[in-house]
Amino acid sequence: MTSSSNDRLSPVLTRIDAGLDATLDRLMGFLRIPSISTDPAYKSDCDRAADWLVSELQSLGVTAEKRPTPGHPMVVGHAGPDSANAPHLLFYGHYDVQPVDPLNLWSSDPFDPKVETRAGVKMICGRGSSDDKGQLMTFVEACRAWVAEHGSLPCRVTFFFEGEEESGSPSLIPFMKENAAELTADVALICDTSMVAPGVPSIASQLRGMLKDEFTLKGPKMDLHSGHYGGPALNPLREISKIIASFHDDQGRVAVEGFYDGVHEVPEDIKRQWEGCGFNEAEYLGLAGMSKPHGEAGYSALEQQWARPTLEINGLWGGYNGVGSKTVIPAEAHCKITCRLVGDMDPQDLQKKLRAHVEARCPQDAEIVWDNTPEGSPAAVMNTNRPEFEQARKALTDEWDREAVFSGMGGSIPIAGFFTSVLGMDSMLIGFANDDDRIHSPNEKYNLESFHKGMRSWARILDALSK
Amino acid sequence: MTSSSNDRLSPVLTRIDAGLDATLDRLMGFLRIPSISTDPAYKSDCDRAADWLVSELQSLGVTAEKRPTPGHPMVVGHAGPDSANAPHLLFYGHYDVQPVDPLNLWSSDPFDPKVETRAGVKMICGRGSSDDKGQLMTFVEACRAWVAEHGSLPCRVTFFFEGEEESGSPSLIPFMKENAAELTADVALICDTSMVAPGVPSIASQLRGMLKDEFTLKGPKMDLHSGHYGGPALNPLREISKIIASFHDDQGRVAVEGFYDGVHEVPEDIKRQWEGCGFNEAEYLGLAGMSKPHGEAGYSALEQQWARPTLEINGLWGGYNGVGSKTVIPAEAHCKITCRLVGDMDPQDLQKKLRAHVEARCPQDAEIVWDNTPEGSPAAVMNTNRPEFEQARKALTDEWDREAVFSGMGGSIPIAGFFTSVLGMDSMLIGFANDDDRIHSPNEKYNLESFHKGMRSWARILDALSK
Repeated sequence: MTSSSNDRLSPVLTRIDAGLDATLDRLMGFLRIPSISTDPAYKSDCDRAADWLVSELQSLGVTAEKRPTPGHPMVVGHAGPDSANAPHLLFYGHYDVQPVDPLNLWSSDPFDPKVETRAGVKMICGRGSSDDKGQLMTFVEACRAWVAEHGSLPCRVTFFFEGEEESGSPSLIPFMKENAAELTADVALICDTSMVAPGVPSIASQLRGMLKDEFTLKGPKMDLHSGHYGGPALNPLREISKIIASFHDDQGRVAVEGFYDGVHEVPEDIKRQWEGCGFNEAEYLGLAGMSKPHGEAGYSALEQQWARPTLEINGLWGGYNGVGSKTVIPAEAHCKITCRLVGDMDPQDLQKKLRAHVEARCPQDAEIVWDNTPEGSPAAVMNTNRPEFEQARKALTDEWDREAVFSGMGGSIPIAGFFTSVLGMDSMLIGFANDDDRIHSPNEKYNLESFHKGMRSWARILDALSK
Repeated sequence: MTSSSNDRLSPVLTRIDAGLDATLDRLMGFLRIPSISTDPAYKSDCDRAADWLVSELQSLGVTAEKRPTPGHPMVVGHAGPDSANAPHLLFYGHYDVQPVDPLNLWSSDPFDPKVETRAGVKMICGRGSSDDKGQLMTFVEACRAWVAEHGSLPCRVTFFFEGEEESGSPSLIPFMKENAAELTADVALICDTSMVAPGVPSIASQLRGMLKDEFTLKGPKMDLHSGHYGGPALNPLREISKIIASFHDDQGRVAVEGFYDGVHEVPEDIKRQWEGCGFNEAEYLGLAGMSKPHGEAGYSALEQQWARPTLEINGLWGGYNGVGSKTVIPAEAHCKITCRLVGDMDPQDLQKKLRAHVEARCPQDAEIVWDNTPEGSPAAVMNTNRPEFEQARKALTDEWDREAVFSGMGGSIPIAGFFTSVLGMDSMLIGFANDDDRIHSPNEKYNLESFHKGMRSWARILDALSK
């Protein structure tokens, strides 16, 4: 860090600290808008939240406007100078929130936010405080402080806020395609993720991909009576169970031939980072009632979740499921499958292998019928070789006084994939939420530390990326 | 057969042949009564069917009456002399019938019975023609002919007709207990079964028993997200599939330890009888879309159905079963089981073994929760050493000009078990139905041959048992 950059950063950080109460007031105003995107009753509130953001951006000198879609509007803004030395950044967040049912489980009104101290920790309580209004405001407020101090941002920034993230983003891809030139920057910043552990700054650098498939095992021509046919009859429930049991070996490893093609072991340096990242395995497992990781033997829970592929059964059914008993041998059994993908696993190729595994185990007198609409997306491995990643990691380390980590994620953040596939743009996923923020649940909260240090983190990152 | 018995039988048979049209007319009158026991709209019709039977029995000199129950009435009648040389027989049948939906699949009014010739075979068409009005009338009409010829029956006979067989027989056991002394005879005759193959007279001498059980495999504390927990999470759908897959070995044999305790191989003489009984394995399997028997290797479809125990899954479910996909690892999986029992298998003992097998395979961090209301009944092996069995078999062989067989049955006929458990009485199950009679379905029929030779068979059996 050069002294000149220290010079421009320090007063911004000081301003953020001094202005904390005012930034909190602004956030509270944003949180009071019940912008529940999935419920048509809140359509005008979503519109109001978009207006609020436009006004907020304009107040810090951003050219911002609300842009219509068939659903809730987008908010797009542009600010800052072009610089040969600094990347053009796109910042993404979403202003819509999840529904609040069941309301009776909230300890206070979800849309009357408060700062409270619980168990010694100060937190902002209310719907959207963490997901995603509080998170997106960390960036907006960092920009406000920078502009207030220096008159303009240190690099060109495009702001892109969505109002349909919690309801499937139906307008997102069409809007991105129609406005591709305007939205394409050098790199995207996404603030919608958690830290690996409390106080451990994290850049999510790999997300698992997904393959969905579904099949029916058809056996007898019709449901049979277990007296008249039990014994000679092929039982689809037994046969589908055998197929499912064949998917894994006794070490928890997927036994589908070629399943691990394209899977790479985690590099030693990343592994060491993860080991020291503060992830509490016992707590993570205990939350779900587990005393040990049940995945592939030889891998930690974190590796099983972030770096290893899975084949899971998400639904299984056949025969009589009501109260009491029915002496039936059913004609069919059904099974829903998702695989989580890592590394270079190819969803289309994997689907062929999965189907071949199942079909090879289809017994005489039975038939496998596949659902026609499998979906697949490859794993997203962030381009951590870009200099911005190391610059951001160093900035985060400085702020949190704790080595920042490139973390994995077990799930997917679709927007990161869309930025790549639609706009050809790399993403950095940096968020300050904690796993106990109860997003999507009653009593959502965002730690005041996440909000405060989040703003300071973005100021440092803006500085670091703009040298 | 002595000449004296020939003397008393021949005129009865002649009378049956000569009176066929009149017996058919009476049966038609009985079939016209829509005595659907399960539907309250037909309550008075059930009552009318009971009255019809009382009047019918009285017309042949039987002391008969309708006996009230909380549901539909019973009909009980007594006739014939006590004889030291002949057993006291109880004859059981039921006057109620199944509903007729879907009505549009009937080729004529189910309660306007007709004799028709289809594919060269004369048949009585209408609801109840086979199950069980036509069958029970074979015995009543044989008695009528005997009484008309000889003035009284050759032995003491108790008639016992139920009107709730098609709706779960709720009044049956209480009525039997309250009237045990009156209903207990030396042996019961039950006419509610099929012949093994067309034209092959059959005495069902072994029925399989049953054990029902049900369990839930509980895993994670709550439904988990397959991104956040997929890998480390125990998946109850995978675990229950492994347990189900462990129930059988690759030869189709049940792998539960001690499962076959009390199972006996079919004696060679019975096996030879079965081999020659005219059962068409290919046709039986083909009806269900099967090209081979899928049960225990080394046993024919008939042995698998009649003489071998089974462990079948009748219901299996867990996770998301709706349209599309849900990335869930469910907290629970469920499974319904029935075992069919043979020989001396003890349902209570078997339940312990089954549960032990499952519990031994319950993984760490999971729990097996059993349904609290398992039901079990042992196999019923008829007491074929009683002289009546051989006497009846010989009589049937004489009538049908085809060696009569002691057949098995894959299912259960609860009344036979109740006669044993409540009244301590052995049963002989002799019926003349065919597997293609479409009982419980549209276009039920009863071959005229079954009706005619059924009456003649009972006359011969009455003669043979009363010497």
